[in-house]
Amino acid sequence: MSPFLQVEHIRDQFPGLANNWHYLDTAATAQKPKVVLDAMMRAGGVDYATVHRGVYARSANMSVAFEAARTRVARFMGATSADEIVFVRGATEGINLVAHSWGTANLTAGDRIMLSQLEHHSNIVPWQMVAEKVGAFIDVCPLTKDGQIDLDWLEAHLTPAHKMVALAHVSNVLGSVLDAKRAAHAAHAVGAKLLLDGCQAAPRMHLDMAALGCDFYVMSGHKLYGPTGVGVLWAQAETLNAMPPYQGGGAMIDRVTFEKTTYAPAPSRFEAGTPMIIEVIGLHAAIDFIDSFGPDALFAHESALAAQTCDALRAISSITLYGPEQSAGIVSFSMVGVHPHDIGTILDEENVAIRAGHHCAQPLMDHLGVPATARASFGIYNDEDDVAALVRGLERVKRIFG
Amino acid sequence: MSPFLQVEHIRDQFPGLANNWHYLDTAATAQKPKVVLDAMMRAGGVDYATVHRGVYARSANMSVAFEAARTRVARFMGATSADEIVFVRGATEGINLVAHSWGTANLTAGDRIMLSQLEHHSNIVPWQMVAEKVGAFIDVCPLTKDGQIDLDWLEAHLTPAHKMVALAHVSNVLGSVLDAKRAAHAAHAVGAKLLLDGCQAAPRMHLDMAALGCDFYVMSGHKLYGPTGVGVLWAQAETLNAMPPYQGGGAMIDRVTFEKTTYAPAPSRFEAGTPMIIEVIGLHAAIDFIDSFGPDALFAHESALAAQTCDALRAISSITLYGPEQSAGIVSFSMVGVHPHDIGTILDEENVAIRAGHHCAQPLMDHLGVPATARASFGIYNDEDDVAALVRGLERVKRIFG
Repeated sequence: MSPFLQVEHIRDQFPGLANNWHYLDTAATAQKPKVVLDAMMRAGGVDYATVHRGVYARSANMSVAFEAARTRVARFMGATSADEIVFVRGATEGINLVAHSWGTANLTAGDRIMLSQLEHHSNIVPWQMVAEKVGAFIDVCPLTKDGQIDLDWLEAHLTPAHKMVALAHVSNVLGSVLDAKRAAHAAHAVGAKLLLDGCQAAPRMHLDMAALGCDFYVMSGHKLYGPTGVGVLWAQAETLNAMPPYQGGGAMIDRVTFEKTTYAPAPSRFEAGTPMIIEVIGLHAAIDFIDSFGPDALFAHESALAAQTCDALRAISSITLYGPEQSAGIVSFSMVGVHPHDIGTILDEENVAIRAGHHCAQPLMDHLGVPATARASFGIYNDEDDVAALVRGLERVKRIFG
Repeated sequence: MSPFLQVEHIRDQFPGLANNWHYLDTAATAQKPKVVLDAMMRAGGVDYATVHRGVYARSANMSVAFEAARTRVARFMGATSADEIVFVRGATEGINLVAHSWGTANLTAGDRIMLSQLEHHSNIVPWQMVAEKVGAFIDVCPLTKDGQIDLDWLEAHLTPAHKMVALAHVSNVLGSVLDAKRAAHAAHAVGAKLLLDGCQAAPRMHLDMAALGCDFYVMSGHKLYGPTGVGVLWAQAETLNAMPPYQGGGAMIDRVTFEKTTYAPAPSRFEAGTPMIIEVIGLHAAIDFIDSFGPDALFAHESALAAQTCDALRAISSITLYGPEQSAGIVSFSMVGVHPHDIGTILDEENVAIRAGHHCAQPLMDHLGVPATARASFGIYNDEDDVAALVRGLERVKRIFG
C-alpha cells in the first residue's frame, strides 16, 4: 500500500498554498487550513466574548467552547483529564514555565540538568537561565553517528544528581525520532523528570502521554496547522498543582488582598490574564482537521517524502545529508561551495520554499561543523511534485555554482 | 457640538454586534471590526509565513509587515522608535515581564513598591511575587472619596526607598483617569520608576509616551479592538537594553553554546520563540481603525455615554454609583438587595451585556465594601440606544426584586 496521502483535495483547503507553491518549511510553521481560519473568524466575530467572567449567554457559550477545546487537546494528547492541559503562548513559553516554576521550586545548587546536542534553543536557554539562578549544572547528551540522541550514553551517564532530562521528541533539524519510553525509563531510574519538546512530533505522530511516560510535554499551535500565539503544556494535574505560579494576574488567583494572595488550582493557576480565546478555538479546529487523517497516516506520508528526498539528493554528488536514515519528515543538507542561504534564494525563484540557517540549534550546527544547513520539511499538503521541484531547483543551484 | 460619534455605520463593521446586541462589556474585551478579522485571515492565509527566518520572499514580506506593525504601534503610542515596542501576549505578561526582569535586577531587600487601592490583579500579583522574592515591601496608595488615586497622599508618602510606582492609567472598574504626568513627577522626584497599566486608557485616550513621562507602559490588543493573544510593553530602548532576558528561546539570542549564551538587544531579547504573527498584523489593523476616528473623539464619546448613564441611574433610587463624576466610559454600580450577578442575568434577557463581579480588583471591592459590582463599559460602537436599553433593563430588575 502506498504510504502517500492523496493531497490534491487537501491542498485546496489551504489558502496559503495557492499558485502551486512548493512549501517545504512546515517545521518552521505550518500553513493553516480554511477550517482553522473560519473558526478564528467566528470566534473573533459573531461568537466573540470573553471567557470565565461574563454573566451573559454569549460569554457563557464562549467559556464552554474554550473548555471544550481544552478537553479536545487532552484527548488528542492522550491525557487523562482536561486539567492537565495548560494553554500557553507556544512551546517556548511552556518550557520557560516549567524551567522557572518547577525548576526554581525543585532544583538546588549542585543539581544537574540533562539536555542533548540537538536541542532547539528554546530547550536550552530556559535551562541555562534557571541553572545559573540556582547553581545547577547542565550536561549534554551526545548524538549517535547518524544524528540520534545517544540513549546508551544517556543511560550510562544519568546520576541521582540529575533532576531533569529535557529532550526533543523529534529533532527540528534532523527529523530524528527519540525513543521516548526508553528516555523516560532512564530518567525515572535516577529519579529525574522527563520533559519532551513535542513541537515537531505533535504534528506528525500519535501522542499518548501515559504510554510515553514523560512528565512534561510541550507543543506549539502554529506548527500543528493552528494559529500563532497558542501552545500547550501538558503535565499531570498533581505535578501542576505542586508547582508555584509563573505569571501573576487575573484568572489565576483564588483571592487577592495586599496582605496575602492565594492561587487557583491548575490549569487556571498558570493562565494569568485574558487567555488566547480566538487562538484556542482555532487550535481546536486544527486538531479536528489533522486528527481526521490520523497521525499514523501523517507520519507515514511525511517519512516517505523525506526518504524519497534523501534518495534523490544522494544522487547529487555535491550534496551532504545530515541525520538518520529514517526521518519524521525533515531533511537537512548542504552543498559543497554554496552557502545554504544562496540555496534558499535560488529555490525561491523556482517557487520552492525551504529554510536555511541554524534553525535555532547552534550547538547542533557546531556539532555538524557547519554554520548553517538547508532544510526541507514536509507537511500534510506536500507530495512528490514538491520533492521533484526541490530536486530540479537544486540541480539549477548546482549549475549556477558548478 | 455633540460629543457623540455617529455609530450606525460603525456598528455595521462589527460582526459581533449583530441582532442589535447592547454590548456594554468593552472594558473586559472589545469587539473586533471586520478589517481586523480580514487582516488576520490574510495573515493566516494567503500571506502566511514565519518571520525573521525564511530566505524566501513570502517570509521576507511577512517580516516587513510584522516590523511595520511595530512601527505603527510606536507611532500610536508616541514612542520615539520601534525598538521601544515589545510584543507580549497581553498587558498581564507585560507587567510580569517588568516585575520579573527589571524587578529582579533592580529591587533588593527593603525596597518599596507603590501600588494603589484600585489596581487590577495583574498590576498587584506580579509585584507581590517579586517583592516576596527579593524582600521588598508593597505600599498601597488610597483613593479619594470619589474613587481617584489620591496623588496628594502619593506625593506625601513616596520616599527614596520606593523604586517602582505602578498605577492604572484608567481604572477598569471606576473609569477614574490618572493624572499621569503628576504621578510621573512624584515618582521621579524620589528616584522611582513609573509603570502605567494602560489597558483601559489605550482604547480611549491619546497616548504620548514622552508627554506622559512614564518609564513603562503596557496595553492589551484585545481591549484595543484587536486580536486576543497580543499586547505591548513600551519602555525606552536604553531601559529595555539594561534589563536581563525574561523568557529564553529562539529569536532572543545572539549566540548559543552550552558554555555561554549571549542575548540579542531589545526588543528581540524579550520576544523568545515564534511571535504572535497573525495577532500582530491584526493589531496593526485595529490601530489603523481606531486611530482613524481620533482618540480624543473616542474619549469624548464614551465619557458622554458614561455621564448620561450616571444621570439616568441616579434617578433610580435603589442604585448606588461608584467612582468619579468624570469617567472615561466605565460605570460601576450596585442595587440594594440585588446581587450584581442577578442584575447581569436579567439584563442578558433584555439583550444587554454587562459585567458583574469583582472585575479582577478584589482590593478595590474590599475598599468599596462590596463583594462585587455591576459594570457597564462603553466602546466606539455604543450609543444612546444602549444606555436606554440598560436603563429599561434595570427598571425591570427593580420591578422583579422590588
